[in-house]
Parts: sequence; C-alpha cells; structure tokens
Amino acid sequence: MQKISLEEIKSWERFYRANFINCLTGFKPVCLIGSISNDGIANLAVFSSVIHLGSNPALVGYINRPIAAARDTIENIRATGAYTINHIHPEFVDQAHQTSAKYPAEINEFEAVSLEAVYENDFAAPYVAASKVRYGLQLEEIVPIKQNDTFLVIGSIHQVHIDSSLVQPDGFISLEQCKSLASLGNDAYYETTSVARIAYAKAK
Amino acid sequence: MQKISLEEIKSWERFYRANFINCLTGFKPVCLIGSISNDGIANLAVFSSVIHLGSNPALVGYINRPIAAARDTIENIRATGAYTINHIHPEFVDQAHQTSAKYPAEINEFEAVSLEAVYENDFAAPYVAASKVRYGLQLEEIVPIKQNDTFLVIGSIHQVHIDSSLVQPDGFISLEQCKSLASLGNDAYYETTSVARIAYAKAK
Repeated sequence: MQKISLEEIKSWERFYRANFINCLTGFKPVCLIGSISNDGIANLAVFSSVIHLGSNPALVGYINRPIAAARDTIENIRATGAYTINHIHPEFVDQAHQTSAKYPAEINEFEAVSLEAVYENDFAAPYVAASKVRYGLQLEEIVPIKQNDTFLVIGSIHQVHIDSSLVQPDGFISLEQCKSLASLGNDAYYETTSVARIAYAKAK
Repeated sequence: MQKISLEEIKSWERFYRANFINCLTGFKPVCLIGSISNDGIANLAVFSSVIHLGSNPALVGYINRPIAAARDTIENIRATGAYTINHIHPEFVDQAHQTSAKYPAEINEFEAVSLEAVYENDFAAPYVAASKVRYGLQLEEIVPIKQNDTFLVIGSIHQVHIDSSLVQPDGFISLEQCKSLASLGNDAYYETTSVARIAYAKAK
C-alpha cells in the first residue's frame, strides 16, 4: 500500500489530481439532467453527483459545480423549479458524454447531440426519450457549499417513468438488466454485474 | 414505459417504497466509514452516500441519516474530527453489510464482524486493513438538511492509502481491477466492467 499525504496531493499537476480525487470516491450514478429556460431553450447535461437523500419524502440531491463553470442547469432549475434525471445506457453513452462540452446557453443540447426530448403531461422539463429509467423533480432548496462554491440542489420526486419489467415484487429495480451505467472519474463508464443481495442485517 | 405519480409512491407499503426510491438514483459508491469515540471505542458502518465534492481542495461528502436512526458515526466525527472511508471488495462484502446492524454504541463493529482495524501514523480514526483503497478525512462542516433531518457531512482528504498498481499514468484509478464494489438500493452489491473511457468533450 502506497501512502499519499495531503502535501503530495496538493503538489500534483491539476489534471492528474482531478483524475485521482474524482476516482477515489468510487463508482457513481451517472445520469443526464434535463431542464428548460424561461425562454423555452431545453438543456441537457451529464452529471455524476446524484445522491439519494431519503425515500419518504422521496428526495434526491445533486452537486452543481460553481456557477462560473456550470451555469445553465442550475439557472434553469431556479427559474422553472422543474428538472428531470435520466439514466444512461450504453447505446447512447457517447451522446451523453458529449453534453459535457461547453455549449452556449442558446444551444439546445438535445439537438446538438441528437437525443430525442420528450415532454410528459404538464411537466415543464424535458425527459430523454431513450432512457428506460427517468424521473421528474420539483426544486426544494439550493444549499450553497461554502468550502468550494458548489451547491447541493435538493429536489422532490414528482413522477417516475420506468420500464416496468425492471421492477421486482419487493420494489427493487434491477438496473443491471437495462444496463444503467455507473461512472468513474470524469470520463469512464461502467456496466455492472450482481455480486450479492444480502438480507437485512441484525446484531448477533 | 410505466408512469408512476407521487400520489402512487406515497400510497405504497414502506419497504416497497424504500427499495424502489433507493434504487431509482442508480448505482452508488458503497464503502465503510471508520471512526472512534472519545472513549476509544472504534466504530465501523457501511454507507452508500459518499459523494465527490471537489478535487482542489479535495473534499468528500456523505449523507448521515437522522440522529435517531444513525448516531454513532456522526457523533464520533463531531467528537474527534477524524474518520476514514474504505472501499469494499467481494471477499468481505458479507462482513461489510453486517455493520449495518444496529449494534449498541459500546460495541466495536470491527470486532463484531471480524474485520481488522489498522491505525496509521498519528491519525485518530481506524482504517479497514483489507481495503485496497482507503483515505482519512478531517471534518470540515456538518450541514443539516432540513427537509428530512439528515446531514451532509463534509470532510477534507488528509491522507490516502492505495494499492499503487491501480493508479494509471494520468491519475485515473482502475477500481474495477481491485473490484471495489458499487451498491444498489439497500442491500445489493455489484462488480463493474468498463464500457468506455471517452475523451474530453468539446462543442462541435
């Protein structure tokens, strides 16, 4: 085992450090966040910072980078209160990754990367048609993280669209069946294989 | 595609709902958090809510459930300011899962589940000896999430211990090589297989 101190990490070249620290936390739930501006311009961007906050009420967070680096998604969410989270599958991983490019605010990334948008019921924000697991959220709160000018964006689940063959009798969703991807670092994507489902643990 | 409304989700039996909502956000980075009380009792608990917050400074968050449900880890971190995050590999996944049982505060989970603790240099909190990727954190801030009484616990990386054969020339860590696990829902564990590493995206 190699031991690496904070001083060493600080001394590293910035892309090396970003790759290493981004990987250190492990595999991440990668997804596309869909939103729309008050002017009606749809936005789509890949995020690997979605986090389950609670099931009752059903709350989901994601980390938005500092405004100077990533403005469109958070500004649309502030403006409309609505956004969608869409799982990514291997057949459109290249298009999903391409949404990380710095497109101007007036560009609709659905069109730029050739992913079909779909609007459901009265919900303002666009979904990714090709995604087999997607859900719409209403903004609850944007919590600033003062240590690095990022934001924890908290939303409540409003509606879910899912391939119902994935849902097991106990509510578990077999995401490996539809190959919902995980990510690692800034640029790597992974399929998964089940190792175990383990019964509820009791103290012995 | 099945459409599920918030009203339906609210009407579900609670374990079904917890399984479904926990899976909806996708694959998660599962790990063991090691801590120690001021009385010297080591604690170890499995978490699937670790999140990369930033690389420079190197900041990592995790979500702690409400105090009534999960007290020991957060109280130890408050008391000592130190904790460790340890990746989980298939050979000790059963022991890792067993740490989710409700052991009393005076029980040392390392001993209860037979995982060796290791203390490194002057760092107060214990690491999991069997983990090939592990890092120590200093508490920066505990941010209460008022919507459901959970907490975002923010720490800065203090030291990293890693099997150096996993680190690529550009800093990327090939976590699939050491089979660091991902999790899904409350109780499912997964290995991963690489699909793609895709070059930095530029607007076309």
